[in-house]
Amino acid sequence: MSPRLLPLLLLLPLISPFSLPSVLPALPLHSSSASSSASSSASSSALFAVDFDVAILGCGVGGHAAALHASSQGLSCAVFTAADVGGTCVNRGCVPSKALLAASGRVRDMQDADHLGMFGIKVEGGVTYEREKIAKHARDLANNVKGNLENSLKAKGVELIHGRGVLKGEGEVLDEASGRTYTAGSIILAPGSVPFVPPGVTVDEKTVYTSDGALNLDFVPEWVAIIGSGYIGLEFSDVYTALGSEVTFIEALPNLMPTFDREIAKQAERMLIRPRAIDSRLGVFASEVTPGIPGKKPCTVKMIDAKTKEHVETLEVDAVMVATGRVPNTNNMGLEDVGITTNRGFVPVNENMQVLTEEGGDVVPDVYCIGDANGKMMLAHAASAQGISAVENIVGRTHAVEHEAIPAACFTHPEIAMVGLTEEQAVERSGKEGWKLGKSQASFKANSKALAEGEGAGIAKVLFNEDTGKVVGVHIIGIHAADLIQECANAVACGTTVKELSMLVHTHPTLCEVLDEAFKGAVGMSAH
Amino acid sequence: MSPRLLPLLLLLPLISPFSLPSVLPALPLHSSSASSSASSSASSSALFAVDFDVAILGCGVGGHAAALHASSQGLSCAVFTAADVGGTCVNRGCVPSKALLAASGRVRDMQDADHLGMFGIKVEGGVTYEREKIAKHARDLANNVKGNLENSLKAKGVELIHGRGVLKGEGEVLDEASGRTYTAGSIILAPGSVPFVPPGVTVDEKTVYTSDGALNLDFVPEWVAIIGSGYIGLEFSDVYTALGSEVTFIEALPNLMPTFDREIAKQAERMLIRPRAIDSRLGVFASEVTPGIPGKKPCTVKMIDAKTKEHVETLEVDAVMVATGRVPNTNNMGLEDVGITTNRGFVPVNENMQVLTEEGGDVVPDVYCIGDANGKMMLAHAASAQGISAVENIVGRTHAVEHEAIPAACFTHPEIAMVGLTEEQAVERSGKEGWKLGKSQASFKANSKALAEGEGAGIAKVLFNEDTGKVVGVHIIGIHAADLIQECANAVACGTTVKELSMLVHTHPTLCEVLDEAFKGAVGMSAH
Repeated sequence: MSPRLLPLLLLLPLISPFSLPSVLPALPLHSSSASSSASSSASSSALFAVDFDVAILGCGVGGHAAALHASSQGLSCAVFTAADVGGTCVNRGCVPSKALLAASGRVRDMQDADHLGMFGIKVEGGVTYEREKIAKHARDLANNVKGNLENSLKAKGVELIHGRGVLKGEGEVLDEASGRTYTAGSIILAPGSVPFVPPGVTVDEKTVYTSDGALNLDFVPEWVAIIGSGYIGLEFSDVYTALGSEVTFIEALPNLMPTFDREIAKQAERMLIRPRAIDSRLGVFASEVTPGIPGKKPCTVKMIDAKTKEHVETLEVDAVMVATGRVPNTNNMGLEDVGITTNRGFVPVNENMQVLTEEGGDVVPDVYCIGDANGKMMLAHAASAQGISAVENIVGRTHAVEHEAIPAACFTHPEIAMVGLTEEQAVERSGKEGWKLGKSQASFKANSKALAEGEGAGIAKVLFNEDTGKVVGVHIIGIHAADLIQECANAVACGTTVKELSMLVHTHPTLCEVLDEAFKGAVGMSAH
Repeated sequence: MSPRLLPLLLLLPLISPFSLPSVLPALPLHSSSASSSASSSASSSALFAVDFDVAILGCGVGGHAAALHASSQGLSCAVFTAADVGGTCVNRGCVPSKALLAASGRVRDMQDADHLGMFGIKVEGGVTYEREKIAKHARDLANNVKGNLENSLKAKGVELIHGRGVLKGEGEVLDEASGRTYTAGSIILAPGSVPFVPPGVTVDEKTVYTSDGALNLDFVPEWVAIIGSGYIGLEFSDVYTALGSEVTFIEALPNLMPTFDREIAKQAERMLIRPRAIDSRLGVFASEVTPGIPGKKPCTVKMIDAKTKEHVETLEVDAVMVATGRVPNTNNMGLEDVGITTNRGFVPVNENMQVLTEEGGDVVPDVYCIGDANGKMMLAHAASAQGISAVENIVGRTHAVEHEAIPAACFTHPEIAMVGLTEEQAVERSGKEGWKLGKSQASFKANSKALAEGEGAGIAKVLFNEDTGKVVGVHIIGIHAADLIQECANAVACGTTVKELSMLVHTHPTLCEVLDEAFKGAVGMSAH
């Protein structure tokens, strides 16, 4: 008998021990500004016999984190998984792409005779790879992580409801699979997002594909056009060129990597694009894209000028990857029925993740929205943080995620990582708010560990408020950037000043010393 | 004309602009508790015409950092380099060893058919290496870094005096090379250390060698005995086994890696020792070691029981590495002449790095000692931190290095890194001081990025004070541990609590999430 078939009466005894206020010591449940109605506070389930204290719609990384945190706070919790435990990130996003990057990165390294020659290493007969095994590694990894997520939820007593959840009315969620309606004290919407496909582009997920199809690595195209040069496009250019493809970026804006800090984007062009089999078309839209047949018929990509809309060129390529962003997965989940008006599909929320009727509108009682669907910051770990934050608000500890302290990374070889404002944003903000922007930059080429690894390319720059000393942004391109950014993110979150950072001791010889150098440079202590 | 031949009168005009109090704004020069006599405060050089505000004896990483910081604070500064810019770390230690580890680590990875097979990668004809080129990479790296250090000192106007400096009297330093005596307002001793060679061991630096000789990689022995299983021995076992040697550890204590956290040492045995061509002899001293001739005559290692002193075994091996620690390089530098009594060669200092006449004795005015020679913490970056701290004290901002916030790393594959107390020390300290020790552990095998790289072995454990939430120690063994430890070190330094750490957002999917998991576990939020 599947758990979702358990009748309410059977479920209740299981849930009640977690729902009693007595197991929630030290939580000021009734003093919360976030719990706006008595019938919805976290302790209400025992009194009003709702099925769960918290129902979470969607089981991506955000929904998972919210469920675990709810459970750790003694709340009974159900997750409507819609057959997609792990969501985009684990199944069709960050996780399997890391497997492709790990494999292809090794292929690139091992085929780099010059780099290996510096270490006196030679590969006698050449390095080959089997596409199927790389694809399998990505699939296995996704399944492994998905299994871990599912097990962790079960171990913490979270109820997994395997249908899609649809809002039905105040505190009610319909399980589309069973047709049953559940009640919950609080509801967290975590439906995630799906790839955006521009008009005119026909996706078959075989020769013309989004990241969903790309991660299957069904074949390695000789020539692939990547529409969009954001972090997804960039990571795939890293994978494809390592595996022997030629890449053409098609970017609507006048520069590659338009969402990145300009200086970092320029460094990335120098390190990740120009030395590789990559060219690009800038300032053009792919207005019409038609799938092909592998080895038989090419895909066609018609391009028009982004300003004049005039046809400029038509490419015939072996494959096309569409990496033009993502849109919220919020259709048909009953939002309108409970009075929520989305904005281009995004669910409006306040800083406590409480859903609003519309942008700037009223709080919808006891409904939260986290992750890609609220559009605040479309990153898996941002979704987790928001999920934890929503639960904090549910239990009455008012909390807001500080999005400018959330790091992000692009897992190219070498990596790019960032936190806070780009330099362009910082210049604008400092001008508007009237503070002086400081900038300190350090280079991997002066770092002993980077040089030991033959990886001296890259920079780290620290942007800070000269008046307060607080860090407002850090951007790194270089080996292990995704690990290195963490201390910077923590510094932004904690308000650590560059003066304080300059005196923190960094291990020698490590890559962290690039940041040490930048922090010291910010207070006039730089060696270079 | 070399700078050291410049007569005093010629030097003075060069120095004076840096020595005037007017270029030291905001430094409370005369309010310092650290500047114990008027004639020695940082501004005194202009008044009393000393040659330099600060003279630094030794130019390792510590002396270099002290010199740069002195210069950044507007002090005139000379470094007595003794023909050894970069010191042990750069020329015969951390830096060239990272080159050997980078090269040998790649050899190991590329010969690991199982690991590569997981990514579908095959090496067709095998992987070979040329020892000479690996050795050259190490040499080139050391020279490169040494050059950078030298250039940075020159660029900041630091005077390089190429002889060895010997204390001559209050504020006087003799340059052994030129025979000239210089005067300085403050003196920082930074003479470093040399390898310790136990009695009975004959070192020829060819077949029986310390790390000094090992770094030349003159040959790759088929069988090498490594005396001592601290971090130097462990790193070299990583290099040697990757290059095809068999290793025998000879350890006087009953366990391998006696200075490490016990649990980490056990994990290291499982990951770095047992699967490799390494065996060990525990609880024995190498009482007599005789060099051999490569390819002709073996080295002999006579071993006695550490307790009974009875002979237990004699090994005949191709090479012997002596990694039994280091002793201060403080002989014949005039310490006795100015009333300093060393302790087993170590220069006694207080927490402000001021030299004491003896352990617990009086402050020797205006003399500081940093780095290995004071024995506080024999690490390059500890020396740097102490150098910066000494200068802070010289300019009147009383400062003490918090050694328990200084991270350390062992650059094996994978790495080991740590900060603060071992679990054994923490148990003892918490018992003594009456607080409750908390421990939270996370595993690399649950980390998506580690699994993507096929590197799921390893753990991170966080030790904390349950009463205050403050972190007292973190130990990591696993991929990129040396980068990951930094946020923990910062947390110890800043007093960040595990509660605060548990709410800091970590990038997904990165290795940093292992720590995120451990922090969350510390406050009952763990997923596993």
